[in-house]
Amino acid sequence: MTIMGIDPGFALMGYGVIEKNGQRLTPIDCGVIQTPAGMRNSLRLKLLYENLCKLISHFKPDAIAVEELFYHTNAKTVITVGQARGVILLAAEMCNVPLYEYTPLQVKQAVVGYGRAEKHQIQQMVKVMLNLAAVPKPDDAADAMAIAITHANSVAMLNKTEGN
Amino acid sequence: MTIMGIDPGFALMGYGVIEKNGQRLTPIDCGVIQTPAGMRNSLRLKLLYENLCKLISHFKPDAIAVEELFYHTNAKTVITVGQARGVILLAAEMCNVPLYEYTPLQVKQAVVGYGRAEKHQIQQMVKVMLNLAAVPKPDDAADAMAIAITHANSVAMLNKTEGN
Repeated sequence: MTIMGIDPGFALMGYGVIEKNGQRLTPIDCGVIQTPAGMRNSLRLKLLYENLCKLISHFKPDAIAVEELFYHTNAKTVITVGQARGVILLAAEMCNVPLYEYTPLQVKQAVVGYGRAEKHQIQQMVKVMLNLAAVPKPDDAADAMAIAITHANSVAMLNKTEGN
Repeated sequence: MTIMGIDPGFALMGYGVIEKNGQRLTPIDCGVIQTPAGMRNSLRLKLLYENLCKLISHFKPDAIAVEELFYHTNAKTVITVGQARGVILLAAEMCNVPLYEYTPLQVKQAVVGYGRAEKHQIQQMVKVMLNLAAVPKPDDAADAMAIAITHANSVAMLNKTEGN
């Protein structure tokens, strides 16, 4: 199955696509959708929406995994990232792709096995688990890969539970 | 010109449409788009988006006015309403309708002339200014009318300034 992870953001939205075959995870692509700071907000949201729809129709993921927002981050950021996140959820729904949401804690536990892991530990684990030559750049792309891995591992756990 | 005011919300999104002819404001329609609590978030956002697009294509507003979000409300509410607001901004952009944003303070000052006005004062002024028999129900519809009036009055001020 193909999994697309998304790191929600307004100026930079990270995406990461992996293929899961049994236990094996293969990286397909990752990157960011960028919106210019000087552009009006509604047009930036349209850019995010249209580019995300293009990525979905190109990679045809079987599942999209998105990180949940922190409640305790900067309030202004929560509003702008929340608006961008609304557009991500809408794009997944419009493209009929099942959507899964994971907290930052779940991502850390799934990737590093430790809820208080540091950012660089997560990135190193992404590199190791996907057999990459280097950590994906920028950070938003690496974070999106971590979210995709989280879903892959959750699906594995789910299958294991159902198999018992 | 036709102005559509929107009170951003996730469970209930208010809309109000008015016609402005010179100084004269005429109410056209108001109401709410409702999304069921048991439905998954992405589908609720799709419902909001599609119904809003239908309203825009039906009333063909020359401008859409939306209230800005409070930073100091409940953090969880800020995220869900932020997501809904992202979908509103996207709908306006997709339909090529110019979008204007007003703070709650600006709405109070435009409608009641007093920044610390109470909710019921705003609603009574909406009734008086639009020559309505009663205050629009529910509150979200009345709030949306107040936002539309705010834009109508801002346009009036803008024209006056430009005329000098």
